[in-house]
Amino acid sequence: LSKLYARQARPSPSSSNKVTVFEQEHFQGKCLEFTSECCNIQECGLDNIRSIRVESGAWVGFEHHDFQGQQFILERGEYPHWDAYSGSLSYHVERLMSLRPIYCSHQSSRMIIFEKENFMGRSVEICDDYPSLQAMGWMMPEVGSMHVQCGAFVCYQYPGYRGQQYIMECERHSGDYQHCRNWGSHCQTPQIQSIRRIQH
Amino acid sequence: LSKLYARQARPSPSSSNKVTVFEQEHFQGKCLEFTSECCNIQECGLDNIRSIRVESGAWVGFEHHDFQGQQFILERGEYPHWDAYSGSLSYHVERLMSLRPIYCSHQSSRMIIFEKENFMGRSVEICDDYPSLQAMGWMMPEVGSMHVQCGAFVCYQYPGYRGQQYIMECERHSGDYQHCRNWGSHCQTPQIQSIRRIQH
Repeated sequence: LSKLYARQARPSPSSSNKVTVFEQEHFQGKCLEFTSECCNIQECGLDNIRSIRVESGAWVGFEHHDFQGQQFILERGEYPHWDAYSGSLSYHVERLMSLRPIYCSHQSSRMIIFEKENFMGRSVEICDDYPSLQAMGWMMPEVGSMHVQCGAFVCYQYPGYRGQQYIMECERHSGDYQHCRNWGSHCQTPQIQSIRRIQH
Repeated sequence: LSKLYARQARPSPSSSNKVTVFEQEHFQGKCLEFTSECCNIQECGLDNIRSIRVESGAWVGFEHHDFQGQQFILERGEYPHWDAYSGSLSYHVERLMSLRPIYCSHQSSRMIIFEKENFMGRSVEICDDYPSLQAMGWMMPEVGSMHVQCGAFVCYQYPGYRGQQYIMECERHSGDYQHCRNWGSHCQTPQIQSIRRIQH
């Protein structure tokens, strides 16, 4: 009986990122390998993406080109049926049109969440995974603003890591997310009820 | 600046469980409160559930009555639009027809996953949250069987806690899940790529 690597003591927290995307399900058909961002998969010669193999790093996929629309984290592993997988995301993601690595140079992740926009109101520090913020003492179903001090997080609309996803990174926007308008181009509500760290 | 409760040092790991379900969205209309299992919400007088408020504990919801079909964890928080929330689950959950609390008397959760059915083949111990099993050293996208030693877990088909969900509890089936047929009445594949603990 062996142990999996502990999440805080991973063997190689390297900066390598590699993903292979396929035009057909089950890793068939035309494919492309990326080690850095792609702002438009059609301009790279792929009509559509139907399966994905994330070989290293963590990635963000976007509904539209140029990193617009719904966003969703892609972690190391196999996604043999894009249609089925996207059915498990929030409600209107029909295509994956652009993607980029999530830069996460810190071993630890830490951020502060605020009750109101512009870093006002009650605040608490987050440095763990919280499948239910309310169960942990944050009594409202919304977050007004966030400041990522190190690392990266995924914030979710519903408890249990469901619903709309927003990727929050220290190394983008200086880690400042003043208002839900900054969380992503599709964000319409400050509702956030679960948060977890992104680790490679 | 305060801290949220650490996940391992929650204020009251009590056994209290309470959920309120509503016939209309946004916590409107006829409602029912449960503190223990309900095997058929229609027999309790509710045609449908359109919003949910989990006030304490963690619950499992099921697609069909008598705890059959797709299962999904419901953690403390607000689910104002069932339709939107269920759109973020796996692909065919149209209704929530039965639900029960998840019993989780241990502060810690620990289980062993096995490469093959009937607890055969390579095995590793799990006692943390793993958004990508492959990133942590489990090199295949499947799990053959599982034994929960204490606590409870949710296992997911895809990385990042997406896709089909299976609730695994120490206090059911003696914690033994020999084959994917035992994981739930809808389970068709041993594909499991992320696992997390359930904590109240």
